[in-house]
Amino acid sequence: MEQDPTAPGSIRPGGRTARVRDAVLRAAGDLLAERGFAHLDLAEVAARADVGKTTVYRRWRTPAGLVADLLVDMAETSLPHSNTGSLRDDLHANARLVATTLTDPRQGPLFRAVIAAALTDDTAAAALHRFYDTRLTEWSPVIESAIARGEVPADTDPRAVLSAVSAPLYYRFLASGDPLDEAAVTAAAEAAAAAARAGVFTSAAR
Amino acid sequence: MEQDPTAPGSIRPGGRTARVRDAVLRAAGDLLAERGFAHLDLAEVAARADVGKTTVYRRWRTPAGLVADLLVDMAETSLPHSNTGSLRDDLHANARLVATTLTDPRQGPLFRAVIAAALTDDTAAAALHRFYDTRLTEWSPVIESAIARGEVPADTDPRAVLSAVSAPLYYRFLASGDPLDEAAVTAAAEAAAAAARAGVFTSAAR
Repeated sequence: MEQDPTAPGSIRPGGRTARVRDAVLRAAGDLLAERGFAHLDLAEVAARADVGKTTVYRRWRTPAGLVADLLVDMAETSLPHSNTGSLRDDLHANARLVATTLTDPRQGPLFRAVIAAALTDDTAAAALHRFYDTRLTEWSPVIESAIARGEVPADTDPRAVLSAVSAPLYYRFLASGDPLDEAAVTAAAEAAAAAARAGVFTSAAR
Repeated sequence: MEQDPTAPGSIRPGGRTARVRDAVLRAAGDLLAERGFAHLDLAEVAARADVGKTTVYRRWRTPAGLVADLLVDMAETSLPHSNTGSLRDDLHANARLVATTLTDPRQGPLFRAVIAAALTDDTAAAALHRFYDTRLTEWSPVIESAIARGEVPADTDPRAVLSAVSAPLYYRFLASGDPLDEAAVTAAAEAAAAAARAGVFTSAAR
């Protein structure tokens, strides 16, 4: 099997390869946010990034390959978990981060575009699932701390609680169109906390 | 303003107009499920439905117009709410309906396609929001009955509770890729019920 030149391990931070990747992913993100996945064109990405077309085609191959690497980058650079000392406040911080991201003038359309890509392309879908996996793992200590403090049952599944915080916000963003306002953020955090305290997300309940 | 020939009121059930619409929407749904929104072609829909191309172009105009009318039809023909006598069981029935729909071999890809359409087209997005609005309204009596039985606070918002049931299932379907299995159905219903009982979805809390 040939080596994957887009694998994170192959990138030397600060080197030419990393600079090219940064420029290409920035251009790809801009174009996705502006026009969506259906109009993502590798030649245009290369021109915007001021990088040779051949480099972009050889390294990312397809629009979906570009989306996949962009999601790796988004997972690497997204914000670390909070540590407020209370489950309620940590889940509120998580809900606020999700809502802020989805309503951001650049990030909102970008997420819309990568999710649209994942709905039509298996490579993009696998990359999207890895992105959420990374995010859910990054924030798991919040639930482990709540278990240690005795706020929720010992066998509470961190992934289930954190998914429950994100889910109502994504449902508004992708399905119902209801606003991602402060009330939605509060309800998402409070509902997940109430269900976790009631033992809904324990392995025994699943 | 010219009359909208796709408005439900203008269709005589059993008439030629209704038969044409049925055939066109069935063909559109099949093509969407098979190939997705990006490849939805009006001429191909007309050929599959055995309907004149001009009729399809004049009446539905664009692929997004077709998706919008398909969503009207899906809302009209989707299942009525349950009435089990318990909030927990009604929410479980609702969660099961959502999961069954999203994992159905035809309906699953069809929902993927209409949501992808909504992510890239404002007409489709507005139609999708109306679809969920209709579904949430159809199932609201389930929450009103729970209020009448004293299972949840009197000012509980039906839409918020029902959105909370659907949300984790859609999050799996569209974002995390986690399976839509029986455990997910149970957790979705139980979490929404626990949060509703705790008063998270009351107007006072919002």
